[in-house]
Amino acid sequence: MRDVAVIGVGMTRFGELWDRSIRSMGIEAGLGAIQDAGIYSTDLEALYMGNMASGLLIKQEHLAPLIGDFVGMGKLHLPATRIEGADASGGLALRQAYIAVASGLHDIVLVGGVEKMTDVGDARATGIMASAADQEWETFHGATLPSLYAMMARRHIHEFGTTQGMLGSVAVTNHYHGSLNPMAQFQREITMEMALESGIMADPLRMFDCAPLSDGAATLILCPVSRAREFTDKPVKILGSGLATDSLALHDRETITSLAATRIAAQRAYKRAGITFRDVDLAEVHDSFTIGEIMAVEDLGFFESGKGGKAALDGELRIDGSMPINPSGGMKARGFPPGAAGIAQAVEIVHQLRGDADRRQVKDARIGLAQNVGGTGATTVVHIFEVI
Amino acid sequence: MRDVAVIGVGMTRFGELWDRSIRSMGIEAGLGAIQDAGIYSTDLEALYMGNMASGLLIKQEHLAPLIGDFVGMGKLHLPATRIEGADASGGLALRQAYIAVASGLHDIVLVGGVEKMTDVGDARATGIMASAADQEWETFHGATLPSLYAMMARRHIHEFGTTQGMLGSVAVTNHYHGSLNPMAQFQREITMEMALESGIMADPLRMFDCAPLSDGAATLILCPVSRAREFTDKPVKILGSGLATDSLALHDRETITSLAATRIAAQRAYKRAGITFRDVDLAEVHDSFTIGEIMAVEDLGFFESGKGGKAALDGELRIDGSMPINPSGGMKARGFPPGAAGIAQAVEIVHQLRGDADRRQVKDARIGLAQNVGGTGATTVVHIFEVI
Repeated sequence: MRDVAVIGVGMTRFGELWDRSIRSMGIEAGLGAIQDAGIYSTDLEALYMGNMASGLLIKQEHLAPLIGDFVGMGKLHLPATRIEGADASGGLALRQAYIAVASGLHDIVLVGGVEKMTDVGDARATGIMASAADQEWETFHGATLPSLYAMMARRHIHEFGTTQGMLGSVAVTNHYHGSLNPMAQFQREITMEMALESGIMADPLRMFDCAPLSDGAATLILCPVSRAREFTDKPVKILGSGLATDSLALHDRETITSLAATRIAAQRAYKRAGITFRDVDLAEVHDSFTIGEIMAVEDLGFFESGKGGKAALDGELRIDGSMPINPSGGMKARGFPPGAAGIAQAVEIVHQLRGDADRRQVKDARIGLAQNVGGTGATTVVHIFEVI
Repeated sequence: MRDVAVIGVGMTRFGELWDRSIRSMGIEAGLGAIQDAGIYSTDLEALYMGNMASGLLIKQEHLAPLIGDFVGMGKLHLPATRIEGADASGGLALRQAYIAVASGLHDIVLVGGVEKMTDVGDARATGIMASAADQEWETFHGATLPSLYAMMARRHIHEFGTTQGMLGSVAVTNHYHGSLNPMAQFQREITMEMALESGIMADPLRMFDCAPLSDGAATLILCPVSRAREFTDKPVKILGSGLATDSLALHDRETITSLAATRIAAQRAYKRAGITFRDVDLAEVHDSFTIGEIMAVEDLGFFESGKGGKAALDGELRIDGSMPINPSGGMKARGFPPGAAGIAQAVEIVHQLRGDADRRQVKDARIGLAQNVGGTGATTVVHIFEVI
């Protein structure tokens, strides 16, 4: 298999984009990456599109050729494929695009993620997000993603002494990072008091423990490393890709305070990259709920089991901390269009490794990691990047 | 890239399977292929799952790890990825599985397709199928797949003198084939009179011009050709894979009497296989509507433009005709669970090439082709198979 690099990135601002359709967001993000890579649409050879639920949200399946058509690929009749794995759809699409380039099948591939959430109301959107959990064993009986993550948080508190303040500090940190990101949905800092006094969504998770419902799109352009310098002085190589799954239903798992899919996907990605967690300079992790970020920094190896919450409280996850996490603001503050989330993580890692992350730049960032989770952890995709 | 072979196939009977869940159909088809290949679940390395609309149909996204878990892959935490391209989802999933094995990433991969249609009523199911068309330009204004294909049929009649009898003869032939297939939804022959007198769905398409709404699942197991004889005496090599797209909306296409995506996907597949249409002994084509089969046999090169209808009427598409098409009964008679349709085509081709298609066996079948279309033709996937 060939080595693969990212040569261009694009994204819309994330947020409640009432005036934007999925089509127009796809165009903006797609053309943004094409411009960033300095290529033409006609240079592209294939499209992979991550999307969680455009059928349920806007009655549009068959999204990949639609977006491909409108970014200028239609008249070339190029291959276009939609990938879905709940809110890991973006990371999964990146993985398929990576395999397509690594295999030698395609040279220049556009991979994007998109979601249009705000055409349905909040309650309906929460119900649609719950389609990531097990319909027969969980959702049918009333479970939602907040309620399932709340059980995980409650157990983490019970086993490890994690506190509400630790959860809240994840939100405070990510809102601080978001305040430095002009593409973020929330660009205002919050205080610990605001986090701890916000309304309860599913005990112990409060409003500021939950990522928002967002619209948005993000894209990357991949090509073989051997050709990357035709297009950019700072290609970002994909060092490793790992994918692992687990039972959808929480009751079938050995533990709910750690995601086996994350641990194993990370092992696979580290192995392929030939590195360990100690080599990672920064990471974007799946913080759809604050407890998710705490489990992630433990499962990825950055902190010992049960110590992730303390790391957040101690400021170690800030961009100036010992292990910078979610410099973009994460899903919590940059915003959370589920199908675009995993691609947006990679966009941020690329900016950080190229050194063009402006006010939120992590110093001396050379190797970055993105961890994208589907639902409560039945899918985790991990990608590791290095600027070359 | 490595050569890839099919070493096992499985499927449920297609039909209105009121007592079956998507989970149980996935298990039956998955374990069927595992048994057919003579392997264990623990030999598998990855799963690709084609599905069109389980979100809209049964409120279950995130389907791949769920099915993977229940066919015994869950505790191995294996990669599992869902692929969607409307009713081309199965063909697209096969293509991704093929790329994954050809790349060298995985050796033994399970690829399946599944759909559970009958948990919603017929009208709602028709509305859900329309999510394959352009929501903003077509579906929102009331278009359904039958109405869009009716326009294509009307134009084909206008340009080429295709007749209702020619459309009907596709249905008569495929029901005849279905009568020979114990896994088909409809195992009864119909007469031309029945076809021509059946109720109008969308003029000129009558009930017997339309595939039914079905439940079902189908699966394949792929491995490198270099390892195939470890598992079977009759591996079926994937000679070529071609994927092409087009505009979702019909009004953006140059013609509606031919699918550019089919013509170009076929060119790509023929080129990769190093053959022409003349080398193909039989094909499974996308007959969700009878006009679709007529366009397919023209676009694939088997018959000249405008001559497909006459070929059907003359019996050339029967299993004993000059160009056997849809020996399984096709979507028309074997049944049409959209996400499983493309995989079921491949299952039939494998049976035909291995020579175990019983009463519907095509004589001297060595090379077979499967053509799987999404919606009205914004996606076409073509695979070519040869027994080795």
